[in-house]
Amino acid sequence: MREWITGRNPVYESLKADRRHFFRLMLARGSRLDARLPEILTFAQKRGLPVAEVSREQLDSLSTHHQGVALEASEYPYAALEDLIAFSKTKSEPPFFLLLDIIQDPQNLGTLLRTAEIMGVHGVVIPSNQAAQITPTVVHASSGAVEYLRVAQYNLAQAIERFKELDVWVYGLDEDARSRVPAQLRWEGALALVVGNEGTGLRELVRKKCDELVRLPMVGQIDSLNAAVAGSIAIYLARQARLSAQSPKPGR
Amino acid sequence: MREWITGRNPVYESLKADRRHFFRLMLARGSRLDARLPEILTFAQKRGLPVAEVSREQLDSLSTHHQGVALEASEYPYAALEDLIAFSKTKSEPPFFLLLDIIQDPQNLGTLLRTAEIMGVHGVVIPSNQAAQITPTVVHASSGAVEYLRVAQYNLAQAIERFKELDVWVYGLDEDARSRVPAQLRWEGALALVVGNEGTGLRELVRKKCDELVRLPMVGQIDSLNAAVAGSIAIYLARQARLSAQSPKPGR
Repeated sequence: MREWITGRNPVYESLKADRRHFFRLMLARGSRLDARLPEILTFAQKRGLPVAEVSREQLDSLSTHHQGVALEASEYPYAALEDLIAFSKTKSEPPFFLLLDIIQDPQNLGTLLRTAEIMGVHGVVIPSNQAAQITPTVVHASSGAVEYLRVAQYNLAQAIERFKELDVWVYGLDEDARSRVPAQLRWEGALALVVGNEGTGLRELVRKKCDELVRLPMVGQIDSLNAAVAGSIAIYLARQARLSAQSPKPGR
Repeated sequence: MREWITGRNPVYESLKADRRHFFRLMLARGSRLDARLPEILTFAQKRGLPVAEVSREQLDSLSTHHQGVALEASEYPYAALEDLIAFSKTKSEPPFFLLLDIIQDPQNLGTLLRTAEIMGVHGVVIPSNQAAQITPTVVHASSGAVEYLRVAQYNLAQAIERFKELDVWVYGLDEDARSRVPAQLRWEGALALVVGNEGTGLRELVRKKCDELVRLPMVGQIDSLNAAVAGSIAIYLARQARLSAQSPKPGR
């Protein structure tokens, strides 16, 4: 299956990450040579990728957010769960995984993957059905970050079991009265974070397999944070704990 | 001007917050009486609000995310800048404001407002032009949170000046090499956070007026976090510092 990746950052990052097969590039006639377009064209030239100038309307039929550029590519290269684990072992820090328990909104999925890449998550696990998959919309929402990430489609409960065999601690984000707050937990060790569905949170089977449940303290009228925000805050907390564990305390 | 608020949480929170005039409620025929709908109908009954059963197609013409319910209401009640300040003075903690420097995507704006409400921000300032305003789409994206928030439309540079007169420290989120990381700054005092545009960050005039520039440490290939995520993490850090300053340290 081929698909069209659109938007300047997504196309640029896809070419730079270089993990897919690329077939051709389409450019809107009269596009300004700014914002990643020179780099995109340099990549295309180096690879001998066909470049076609087309009408803006032709790109509009592919996506509403094309910014004048579209790249035809092979489908997203998912990794195996063991690839994630093998990659993690090449890192000079404890394992750091993200599991997404049925994120349904492509924007939320893309946002979480963008945060995960920026914060150095070693690999991401998503279920292979019911949940949003890595479509071009998600590539766009992640600003291309997913092209650098290892993402496995795998049964979440089984992935948790596998991570536990490796002495990874599994923290599930869950607004339960029994959940602990971040300050009560250690964040710098081998860690897998589980983020639940936008409406219904973690599935019972997944929740039960977590070593700890974590809630972010809240004071307002509204029940819960956006799932991508809550997950991103937890990923940030883990990254900060890792940075503090690795380096001397910063001065004032 | 009247507008249609759609979706079960947004309609529920709007009625509960009770800050607008409400004219009528439309319900999709055959809607299941779950997920906030009983509470919505109770509110409607108490206020003598007309309720019309309509076809799902009629609601589809208002919004793609109506979940079978739409509420006709007066437009969003913006607050004056001085209202934000007066409200802040009723709180038993230092002032805590959020300034949004031209957020253009309604989803990002809604997400930031949702985080702000949940984390107890006292008031939000947005520019009255170029930026997304509080439309029904934003109410929806905020899950109704904006109905509880005080949001002022005001010139940002002037708002910063006014906050400085009140000894509020102004931190701008900015990926500048000179920016400091959160651990180098105090977060529990009188604080105004400034979050910049999705693509271009803070405007120069606004950046110059900030007391400190803050960047969130990142380790991946991608340049920057989603603006709503970066802003939400900063809001979370400020709230956590406030909670720690107020209460004894939590036990393990």
